[in-house]
Amino acid sequence: MTSHGVSATALHSIPIVKSGDDLVEIILDAIKREEINLVNGDVIVIASKIVSKSEDRFVRVKDVDISEQAREIAERNKFNPIHVELALRESAVVIKSDGVLIVETHSGLICNFSGVDKSNAPEEEYVLLPKNPDKSAELILQGLEKETGVELSVVISDTQGRPWRKGLVNVAIGCAGINAFKHNKGKSDLYGRVLKRSTVCQIDELASFVEPLMGQAGERIPVVIVRGYEYSDGVEKAVDINRTKESDMFR
Amino acid sequence: MTSHGVSATALHSIPIVKSGDDLVEIILDAIKREEINLVNGDVIVIASKIVSKSEDRFVRVKDVDISEQAREIAERNKFNPIHVELALRESAVVIKSDGVLIVETHSGLICNFSGVDKSNAPEEEYVLLPKNPDKSAELILQGLEKETGVELSVVISDTQGRPWRKGLVNVAIGCAGINAFKHNKGKSDLYGRVLKRSTVCQIDELASFVEPLMGQAGERIPVVIVRGYEYSDGVEKAVDINRTKESDMFR
Repeated sequence: MTSHGVSATALHSIPIVKSGDDLVEIILDAIKREEINLVNGDVIVIASKIVSKSEDRFVRVKDVDISEQAREIAERNKFNPIHVELALRESAVVIKSDGVLIVETHSGLICNFSGVDKSNAPEEEYVLLPKNPDKSAELILQGLEKETGVELSVVISDTQGRPWRKGLVNVAIGCAGINAFKHNKGKSDLYGRVLKRSTVCQIDELASFVEPLMGQAGERIPVVIVRGYEYSDGVEKAVDINRTKESDMFR
Repeated sequence: MTSHGVSATALHSIPIVKSGDDLVEIILDAIKREEINLVNGDVIVIASKIVSKSEDRFVRVKDVDISEQAREIAERNKFNPIHVELALRESAVVIKSDGVLIVETHSGLICNFSGVDKSNAPEEEYVLLPKNPDKSAELILQGLEKETGVELSVVISDTQGRPWRKGLVNVAIGCAGINAFKHNKGKSDLYGRVLKRSTVCQIDELASFVEPLMGQAGERIPVVIVRGYEYSDGVEKAVDINRTKESDMFR
């Protein structure tokens, strides 16, 4: 059975999140204020930026000492050396530092500049990605379910570039209560043939789903509720999306 | 202004599409049957498979002669030689043929096996991607607007893998009435700083948006209507998403 429709509803009254804020409380307050009733199966998609802020993942520009490696990469590419330094600190492996700075972060994410970002960050500060976004999602989910008694799931999203395709899209960097993938193996096609393989990254699709509502500028929509999306829970997390060096044929 | 919500509604009564079928007529019949009223700004997302079928992009297995190059790639990778042969015929450049068969198609799309596919294809036949999906989208849009008098847009979607991330997602391979990208340059962030660059691939996000409804097996949902998505028209087409060899830092 396929559902008839899926909807995405933006929360409009989330305040600017500060270090140490309780996201569960902030989200539930906004839901109450906006008179939304959560129902079983709702997916709460949260922009990574507010998760980072609540987890105090700020770095002040004046506190950053720049390493030799960061200076070299910055000079060669005309990048901001502080930005490069922070990206290197957050990275386990530098994959490419020529025209781009693609790394694998300590949490396993392959992305540009370790996701270190200045947009929507306070003056003279950078914001780092959450340290362990799957765990952050799990903690937020537990809090939301405890307070509401409703069976939910949580996806933490971030905006990323792609190697073959221009333009950014939202992807998922953390999840809880929902499996990262949807496995179609064993389903039959229109002509009754059984699919041998077909694995869809459903949490990435959910993250993309809500980007138009969240926006990239000062829209102030860091939380979107998706309803009517049929998914199953499972043990595959956002971290499992990232290809390992061995399975990544383009490294 | 950000809209409050976006919805995606599946059309459930589209019949199996055959060669030469008029998609405009088929879509409008289903919309009428399902008592849906189109409104200005609705985005009609169409699975590439039915566009291909209507454009007679079938190839019968027994009509395929296998070239030396196709046989070599197939043997080396244990791929089906007919599948490889068709993928090569549809390709302008072979980017990687070791473990995968990544090509740039004649229409400029970078993808696995030129998008040549057997799922949801009749027995003993393969389905090729539409020859010029942006043009297909334009023709369908013209037909829909002429018949309804409503201002719409059309996105043609296909399911694709990614180099760094596991699992397939839907992306856009054709569009009309909507710009491929959303440009955030010049918008202000939460702290009033102006974004220097931020280009989102909105038609890819729209395509991902509807995959959960379309599915990959025999769901029979090749058309989904997206409502409430704020977009602008423009000259950037789906073909412009593909990085050229010069701008693709991973080739």
